[in-house]
Amino acid sequence: MHVLVLGSGQLARMMSLAGAPLNITMSAYDVTTDRVVHPLTQAVIDQTLDQAIAAADVITAEFEHIPHDILAICDKSGKFLPSTDAIKAGGDRRLEKALLDNSGVKNATYYVINNRADFDAAIQHVGIPMVLKSALGGYDGKGQWRLKDSTQVDTIWQEMQECLNGSAQQAIVAEQFVAFDREVSLVGARSASGEVAVYPLAENIHVNGVLSLSTAIDAPELQEQAKQMFTAVANSLDYVGVLAIEFFDVNGELLVNEIAPRVHNSGHWTQQGAEVCQFENHVRAVCGLPLGSTKLVRETAMINILGEDTLPTELLAMEGCHIHWYGKGKRPGRKMGHINVTADYSGELQRKLCEIAGYLDAKAFPAVHEVAQKIRS
Amino acid sequence: MHVLVLGSGQLARMMSLAGAPLNITMSAYDVTTDRVVHPLTQAVIDQTLDQAIAAADVITAEFEHIPHDILAICDKSGKFLPSTDAIKAGGDRRLEKALLDNSGVKNATYYVINNRADFDAAIQHVGIPMVLKSALGGYDGKGQWRLKDSTQVDTIWQEMQECLNGSAQQAIVAEQFVAFDREVSLVGARSASGEVAVYPLAENIHVNGVLSLSTAIDAPELQEQAKQMFTAVANSLDYVGVLAIEFFDVNGELLVNEIAPRVHNSGHWTQQGAEVCQFENHVRAVCGLPLGSTKLVRETAMINILGEDTLPTELLAMEGCHIHWYGKGKRPGRKMGHINVTADYSGELQRKLCEIAGYLDAKAFPAVHEVAQKIRS
Repeated sequence: MHVLVLGSGQLARMMSLAGAPLNITMSAYDVTTDRVVHPLTQAVIDQTLDQAIAAADVITAEFEHIPHDILAICDKSGKFLPSTDAIKAGGDRRLEKALLDNSGVKNATYYVINNRADFDAAIQHVGIPMVLKSALGGYDGKGQWRLKDSTQVDTIWQEMQECLNGSAQQAIVAEQFVAFDREVSLVGARSASGEVAVYPLAENIHVNGVLSLSTAIDAPELQEQAKQMFTAVANSLDYVGVLAIEFFDVNGELLVNEIAPRVHNSGHWTQQGAEVCQFENHVRAVCGLPLGSTKLVRETAMINILGEDTLPTELLAMEGCHIHWYGKGKRPGRKMGHINVTADYSGELQRKLCEIAGYLDAKAFPAVHEVAQKIRS
Repeated sequence: MHVLVLGSGQLARMMSLAGAPLNITMSAYDVTTDRVVHPLTQAVIDQTLDQAIAAADVITAEFEHIPHDILAICDKSGKFLPSTDAIKAGGDRRLEKALLDNSGVKNATYYVINNRADFDAAIQHVGIPMVLKSALGGYDGKGQWRLKDSTQVDTIWQEMQECLNGSAQQAIVAEQFVAFDREVSLVGARSASGEVAVYPLAENIHVNGVLSLSTAIDAPELQEQAKQMFTAVANSLDYVGVLAIEFFDVNGELLVNEIAPRVHNSGHWTQQGAEVCQFENHVRAVCGLPLGSTKLVRETAMINILGEDTLPTELLAMEGCHIHWYGKGKRPGRKMGHINVTADYSGELQRKLCEIAGYLDAKAFPAVHEVAQKIRS
């Protein structure tokens, strides 16, 4: 089988690595350059998008910010999975909130802002403090504001207005600020026949809005809540493939923060920690193969490598420390790779995280240092 | 770093999959077609061998039957690893036997045959029964004869003579027939600094001279013997990379059968069963990176897929059953892929092998049926 992926970044790359042993070949469409490339080698394939679509058995996506005209072309082929609705909901905060409401899963109170009057209404409806997020194009903490008290209203409105003026399709979604204990996410897969398999929850630490550290956790009650919400959302979309849902854990009650209709950074730990990783399960699902086991096989944590293109060799020599580079050029803050750290039991994982923190710069890897400090104290 | 692999088959393919997360790119030189290709996609790269050598940081090989003129060109670049001597020893039974003797490791009594007089001398020296193997070009049971009693001498000599006439460089090595209890192999890596890391021994079942099933075993005394011999051979070659040694287990005493100066079919189980697989460790060694842990993380067996290009989907749905296809066209008896079966403990692995045998054709997968029958009885 041949799969065409919209997007040619690290997620497509890791899908191609996971698909190869199943004899599933892959090409990737770079929406920015309008070129078809191989997702691992980045070698240009002499095909137009239409030719690539014709040559594919299945089309899928590695990200949700895909121009709707491209989505429409792919949809017309009848080969696109998970579904264009799912991708659109992942790329538009308004649709995402409506989806969550329609699926009956808990999420923060919100209000859609198109103009200053809406902003005032949002303050009434949602209350201060609130979080404001652009409906389109925001990710990794970009296009977000926090309104902590009423003195900030005018300043933030200036910035929001600029954002709204950027595109006629743009809007801003005001959300109640949630005082959460921690952020967790559930990554799972749904097959065309409606089978659902979810991985253990991951606890995530974000720094400046970007994921820094994810650890697979054993939390049976939260897991059950999360799985129910996952199933509700996935079923309501008739979803096929891997889906990720980020939650706020508020005193043991989960509230959906956002969904990602694709393999997800907080699921990279599954490459070493689960029986079958998220990339293989996405490929299996969209190709109509049986889902693989999502069972935890080892305690695992994942550390994102941001803006760095070298690591101390001591890490490679450490038992259970697996480095995954994405073959990308260095840029400040760019996701360059990740480290999966595995251990036989939780105490060993903690010991390893402390050891790893000793090798890594605290500025570049703040979360692992924070965690190591907590473990040591 | 960029690695050029001599040979563009499944071993180069799996090296490229293992190297990608380390940001190690790869090209492969197909010695038969004189073309440089990508080992995963098989896309032709517009380079001559000389250009490919110039573009590579390191050159290595996926097989030992490489024309000596090509080896010489690679060697001249100063980039070739493990070493041309190691490759030559792997590809010439005479050199291999001399290496084993020089390394002081036990192997079957032998005699080199170039003509009929040598054959008679071999019968005197080695005795009947004996095994006869062509010095060059033999693998997977090809170019081998078994002399069980003296009535066969003339018939076998006819065939051997034909083989000898095929090339002036050819010879035949007569070896004492070893009545072994089982065949085991040790796969391990040696770094440029002399560090050695070996995997647990695998017990191998061959059918018609071709590997059919390998299972990682826990046999501390054999492991120690094997590791000593591995280290002696690897050190005597100043070997850098993954090396495999096949042994006969004769009542708890190991005798070297043959060596393979490369990643090896009996080490494919390490993809799921070891902390770092043989392909990654070969890449790490030749690229001067620290060796990864060779620790067993799960009970694992490997089943070769020979001459088949489809498998029942039930296998993919089975927990712990991982299929690795090689992307090759179907031919009778051809190595098309392998199945790695993992389990938490040995009894579970046995149960899974029995279940798998139920899905597979006994003619195509004789060893797993044989093992399942033994387990059930």
